[in-house]
Order: sequence, then structure tokens, then C-alpha cells
Amino acid sequence: MIIDCHGHYTTAPKQLEEWRKRQIAELENPRHAPSKGSLGITDDEIRASLEGAQLKLQRERGTDLTIFSPRAMGMSHHIGNETTSRHWSEHCNEMIHRVCALYPENFVGVCQLPQSPGVPPKNCIPELERCVKEFAFIGCNLNPDPSGGYWKEPPLTDKWWYPLYEKMVELEVPAMVHVSASCNPCFHGTGAHYINGDTTAFMQFITADLFKDFPTLKFIIPHGGGAVPYHWGRYRGLAQDMKRPPLKELLMSNVFFDTCVYHQPGIDLLLKVIPADNILCASEMVGAVKGVDPETGFNYDDTKRYIDRIDWVSRADKEKIFHGNVDKVYPRFAKRTKR
Amino acid sequence: MIIDCHGHYTTAPKQLEEWRKRQIAELENPRHAPSKGSLGITDDEIRASLEGAQLKLQRERGTDLTIFSPRAMGMSHHIGNETTSRHWSEHCNEMIHRVCALYPENFVGVCQLPQSPGVPPKNCIPELERCVKEFAFIGCNLNPDPSGGYWKEPPLTDKWWYPLYEKMVELEVPAMVHVSASCNPCFHGTGAHYINGDTTAFMQFITADLFKDFPTLKFIIPHGGGAVPYHWGRYRGLAQDMKRPPLKELLMSNVFFDTCVYHQPGIDLLLKVIPADNILCASEMVGAVKGVDPETGFNYDDTKRYIDRIDWVSRADKEKIFHGNVDKVYPRFAKRTKR
Repeated sequence: MIIDCHGHYTTAPKQLEEWRKRQIAELENPRHAPSKGSLGITDDEIRASLEGAQLKLQRERGTDLTIFSPRAMGMSHHIGNETTSRHWSEHCNEMIHRVCALYPENFVGVCQLPQSPGVPPKNCIPELERCVKEFAFIGCNLNPDPSGGYWKEPPLTDKWWYPLYEKMVELEVPAMVHVSASCNPCFHGTGAHYINGDTTAFMQFITADLFKDFPTLKFIIPHGGGAVPYHWGRYRGLAQDMKRPPLKELLMSNVFFDTCVYHQPGIDLLLKVIPADNILCASEMVGAVKGVDPETGFNYDDTKRYIDRIDWVSRADKEKIFHGNVDKVYPRFAKRTKR
Repeated sequence: MIIDCHGHYTTAPKQLEEWRKRQIAELENPRHAPSKGSLGITDDEIRASLEGAQLKLQRERGTDLTIFSPRAMGMSHHIGNETTSRHWSEHCNEMIHRVCALYPENFVGVCQLPQSPGVPPKNCIPELERCVKEFAFIGCNLNPDPSGGYWKEPPLTDKWWYPLYEKMVELEVPAMVHVSASCNPCFHGTGAHYINGDTTAFMQFITADLFKDFPTLKFIIPHGGGAVPYHWGRYRGLAQDMKRPPLKELLMSNVFFDTCVYHQPGIDLLLKVIPADNILCASEMVGAVKGVDPETGFNYDDTKRYIDRIDWVSRADKEKIFHGNVDKVYPRFAKRTKR
């Protein structure tokens, strides 16, 4: 079984984006009372949005199931206030729920959290509980920078985040650490802010004792872990210079990397440096890079192909990467399968 | 000949740091007129600061010469104002000049620029000219984020930076894109901010036509190019999706990566993915990571050793990496050698 742990609903029917545009426009009107309203999207429109995109690519590439969440760029937690973010997140998550209900064999849900700059993360708990308990979602995406490129929130190891972590542990759901759009002109979204967010989070985890406080808390760092595997020696050395425990002991029971790295040498390095126990297959499709690599003739984001081509990783390790680790990182997935 | 293009004077005599502390303390006193003053450091103190550190490591590792600049973390352009930064940069650069005068066979200088948040980069020109013309320095370190982790300056491709680039082109000096200390608690300095700065700069270069405007302008992106070589497929794909020219055509005559990557698989990837014409040997010593890697028994930052161990790169390509590319990227180095 091949599971893609990182897919976004980037192809949602246009009413979703139109709703969002109206919501943002209404922020300018101080007399307007924000309301959630409805989207008016039919099941057939959802089917059409997926058939030629994610479902087609699943078939073509041999992926059985995608762990699916709202468009990451679209979360844009920096827009508006807490209510803005709550209404928008609810709609986005309900769309994912409908996708999963229509195609229960193909998709399992992960939610967007209704974060907002400066608002305590514990305020996200009701939406997380709703998604997990009512929609059977198995994880969440956590934005370490709701300011959208200005990094004004405390580090992920700060007690600011602890109430949310307590709930995640209680519900047995991991978080993918995933920034959203950058409104800082210095940072290109998918080319800089995303990758920087990954690198930043990992280094935060090195410097603090978060996983002593939460031994079962789990994070997936997407985009192949940002710069981390490429600089694995630097991170091992920094931890050592800081008299921290070895990385394996410090965080490798809690931190996992996906395989959204879009060329063979990058995937080779990832699988060489990071233990198979800490790698989850993923493509980020339909996502950051849509083109065909002229050097290979295949899509850049067809990451399964790179893993398939590696002959020095055992079959058992590849099975962990393709699906075994999902049971470990997402305990609710394992339970769902048993059901 | 082995040239290390990225060394910092991290071991300067304590008077330098003491001067800086006094300068910072005086910022609190509004009636104090800032003055440059003097450091009171003797040549023997400079010799002592290097003999057991950079010079010893050069001998042990077989490096002939280091392209040497002030401590990057120490630049801290976010502290004080333009005058603060000018006085401090002048002292730091004068220290490098004295090092190079004492050991002309071992060091060649690169300057810190007196940047300050919100201050036009063109104000750095007098110090750049002084260092190049009076001290025979061959390059500069350019901080893309003088705010120290809040990224408030325009991207490096913005016209804001053009007057400085015009002078760099006129003087034939490249810049190493190098952030300084992070005062944003989200970003660990050497573990996140440095690497993010590298990744961010590269992505900025992809999105604009800077090198059409300055065909001979050259940048070194340190720390192995941040996350870039690991995600080379992503960057090729993003450029392609954005209808930009292929990376080779777009920026590979202008952008170079150093080899500050502290483990064998990382260096392997760098040399596999990036053309030898775009790689410069470097260690960042005495720098970010000081320890010995228990997996190899050698210092993490002994990067020459990783390159030496690679048998699939031709001798000619290794010569480019070890010294040939320096002549190309730092034209004043080539002229100096001829002299």
C-alpha cells in the first residue's frame, strides 16, 4: 500500500475562493458582522475538481491513499482576526470532510487550524476536536508563523503552544509543521518561506526539551525537512556543541520528514541520512511544482518514482516509508484501518 | 593551492568585544556623542589570537590561504544606528587588514559593510572603497536582513540595493550574502537564520532580472547554498513554472555556493548537483560548529576532507573548487596573485 502523507486540496471548486474573497473584502467594512454563510458547492463539483487532478495522479503514480488537507497557501492566518480565521478554517475543513466522505478509499483528512496572529493556540482546540471526533481526521497542520513571514509568535517549543499540544496528545494526532503564504516580500512562498519554516522548526526542537514534556507528541516536517537532511552534520554538530543529547535520542521519536524533494539526488540524500523509521512518503501534489522535469521526462513531484529507483534501501524500509510509518505517526489512521 | 573562501575572525583579541560592549552600553546614554576611539590591540595579541586557531587549522588541514572577514554573528547591524554600525565596521575591517598585513601568505581580506536597518545601502560605499582601495580587500559580506531576523529590507533584487551593486561592479568585488545574529527568538542564528538567509537570497535571485541589469555582479551563497542544492529539483521546477529561464542561464554565471556542509552525504550531493564551476571550497572556521564528529573522528567543519574523499569528481574540477574559481569570482584576487 502506498500512502502519500502530504496532499492539499489546491483544486477546490471556485466557490471556495470566491467565498474567501468576499470575506476579505468585508473586512474593510467596519459595520459588517462577520458570518460563516455557506459555499453552495455540490458533490458533483467536488468530484469534478478531483477526478482530473488528485485522483488521476493517484492512479497514474500508483498512490493508494492521500492524507489530505486544505490548501496550505490559502490558510493565510495573517488575514483578519480570529473570527475570520475560524470561519475560513471551518469551511476549508468541511470541504476536506466532504472529499473524504465521497472517496473514503482515496483520502483521509487533516485539518487546518483557525490560528490568528497573537491569539493563543489553545483557541484552536474546538476546531481540532470537531475535525477529529466528528470528521475522523487524523492530524492537523500547524503554522509556526501565523504572521505570514514576520515570525512574531514564540518558538514552537514555548509554553504558548502547550495547551494545543496537550490536546493533540490526548486525541493522538500529529501536526505537520506547515507555514502558509508569505506577505513578507523577502520570502517567496513555496521557494523560501516553506523551506525556511521547516528548517526553523527543526532547529527550535533541538534547543529545548519539548519532547521531555510531551514524549508522544509527533511532528511531520514537510518538504523533506527543509534544509535539515542536507545539513545533517551541522545539526548533529550544533546539538553536540550545545551539550544537547544526540539527535536520535533528542527528537527522532517525535520528528518525521516527508519526501517532498523533487529530484533523485535529494531523495537519495534523504534516505541515506535519515533513518527509514523517520521518513514518510509524500508528494505535496497538486502543489508547489506542477511541471515535467526535462531531465527525466516525469513530473518533478512524482516522488514515488525516485524512491522506487533506489536499490540500496531494503524492501522492509521502503514499506515503512510508503505506509508502515503512517500507522506509527498517525495512530488514528491505524485504528481506522482496523475498523 | 587550497583556498578557503569563508573564514571569520571569530578569535579576535578580547579588546574588540570589549569596545563593542562599551559602544552598545553608550547607546543608552542620549547625551553621549558616539566616537570611534581605538582598540589598543598589539600585533602580538593578533598573532596569538590566530596561531592556535586559524593558522593551526590551516596547517593541520592543508589550507594555504583563507579569504577572511570579521565575525559574521558580530556584525549585528540591527544594533544602534548608522554611526554605530560605521564605527564598529571600521574597527572590524581594520582588524582584518592588520591580520592580512601580518600574514599576507595566509589571509586575504573581505569586509563587513556598515549596514543599518532602513539606511540606503549606498551609504556603505565609502567603507567598501576604503577596504578595497586602501586595504586591498577582494570582496564584501552583504547582509540581506540588517534587522536581524525580521526581514524588513527590500529583497536583494530591489533597486534599493543597486547603487551598492554599481560600486561592486566598478570595483570588481563580489559579495558573500551573509546574515548576522538573529534577534528574533524564532530563529537560532547558525542553525536557522544563516541557512534561511541563504535559501531566501537564492529564491529572490530566481524571481527577478537582477543579472540582466548587472551581468558581471557576483554573489557567493555560503553554507552550501542553504537548502538550495538539496531542493535543486524544486528550484528548477519553480523557475520553469514561473516561465523564467533555466537556472543555468538565469543565474549560474553570477551565483556561487561554498562548501560549508558538514558531512560527507551533503558534500556529495552538492558536488553532484551543482556544476564545479559554481562551487568554492570553504569551511567557515573557526565557526559555527567546533566539535569532532564521533562518526568520523574528524572535525565536522574539516570540509576539505569530504571533497578529498570523493573519487568521481575529476582532478580538474577539484582544482576549480579548491582555487580556480576564486580567480573568477574574486577578480582582485587574481590580480593580486599576478602582482
